[in-house]
Amino acid sequence: MTDSAQHGYTDAKAEYLRRLKRIEGQVRGIARMVDEDVYCIDVLTQVSAVTKALQAVSIGLVEDHLGHCVVDAARRSPEEGEAKVKEAADAIARLVRS
Amino acid sequence: MTDSAQHGYTDAKAEYLRRLKRIEGQVRGIARMVDEDVYCIDVLTQVSAVTKALQAVSIGLVEDHLGHCVVDAARRSPEEGEAKVKEAADAIARLVRS
Amino acid sequence: MTDSAQHGYTDAKAEYLRRLKRIEGQVRGIARMVDEDVYCIDVLTQVSAVTKALQAVSIGLVEDHLGHCVVDAARRSPEEGEAKVKEAADAIARLVRS
Amino acid sequence: MTDSAQHGYTDAKAEYLRRLKRIEGQVRGIARMVDEDVYCIDVLTQVSAVTKALQAVSIGLVEDHLGHCVVDAARRSPEEGEAKVKEAADAIARLVRS
Repeated sequence: MTDSAQHGYTDAKAEYLRRLKRIEGQVRGIARMVDEDVYCIDVLTQVSAVTKALQAVSIGLVEDHLGHCVVDAARRSPEEGEAKVKEAADAIARLVRS
Repeated sequence: MTDSAQHGYTDAKAEYLRRLKRIEGQVRGIARMVDEDVYCIDVLTQVSAVTKALQAVSIGLVEDHLGHCVVDAARRSPEEGEAKVKEAADAIARLVRS
Repeated sequence: MTDSAQHGYTDAKAEYLRRLKRIEGQVRGIARMVDEDVYCIDVLTQVSAVTKALQAVSIGLVEDHLGHCVVDAARRSPEEGEAKVKEAADAIARLVRS
Repeated sequence: MTDSAQHGYTDAKAEYLRRLKRIEGQVRGIARMVDEDVYCIDVLTQVSAVTKALQAVSIGLVEDHLGHCVVDAARRSPEEGEAKVKEAADAIARLVRS
């Protein structure tokens, strides 16, 4: 995690952009399936695949954020650390509940 | 649910396509956020929003499928009904686990 | 699915009761871990295991319900079928979102 | 977060034990519903409620762990911090995927 990185994910930005581009294409693919009246179960299977791909992106972002923004804040001061932990925990809660 | 509808979702196709178009745009928006080094938590919040939007699409597709393909099969014969139920339950399992 | 079964799950009641008994024991086990100050990550791992076990129970109940109550209603009349489908879809939505 | 606390959750142990006791009772309640042939949808609704209660426990444990074990490790050394972050991210991934 180089110090010059602005956010935890900045070092892996190209990889995230590649994965998001792929997910965007998958969503377009689902629309095409619906437009072409593909069988419901096959459309549902593809929606589950996109949801899992999004999950993988979010789990990566969480790890990068914890390992960079949260850890750095903790080193600066207990108060900053605690604030960043609360913020991260709320974001993790939204992920767990989505 | 008109009999002429090919799949349960066919009657609502325009609405599904509209929602999928919006989700596609949201995924592109997440990529833009990453590209512009937006703060991790804000990116994560948007990923959760897209996951929820996808969930809503999948739940709609499940209801349409149950109310059309599964119910019609059940009326044709117990065996057809049971096969469609198994198929639908497996798709629902994938959704619950994704 | 014998006609005499009151609900879809009635035929598999013993199996569901066995699995729920096991889950109950696992939850008690988590409490014991907390009481004995076991490391957080190990407690979290056990919570994930219990969540997955509950998911498996719910997926089984959904399949049983679709294959019994919903299919039977659909055979009685389109209106009864549609009402049962809506009810089942709402329950599935709660599962997907939990 | 007092220094004497062994784990992040130790300060809130009584509260966690209370919530886990309640969840244990809810699981027993689901078994009773199944035993008494309660309608499938009502059983499913209760399973979703227990899943959400377990989620809330796990989210609390994550926040406590981040704010105690992970932050303390980060202050000791970058290497210790990074190892704890990886461990926490894997546990969070299991939660998101369960």
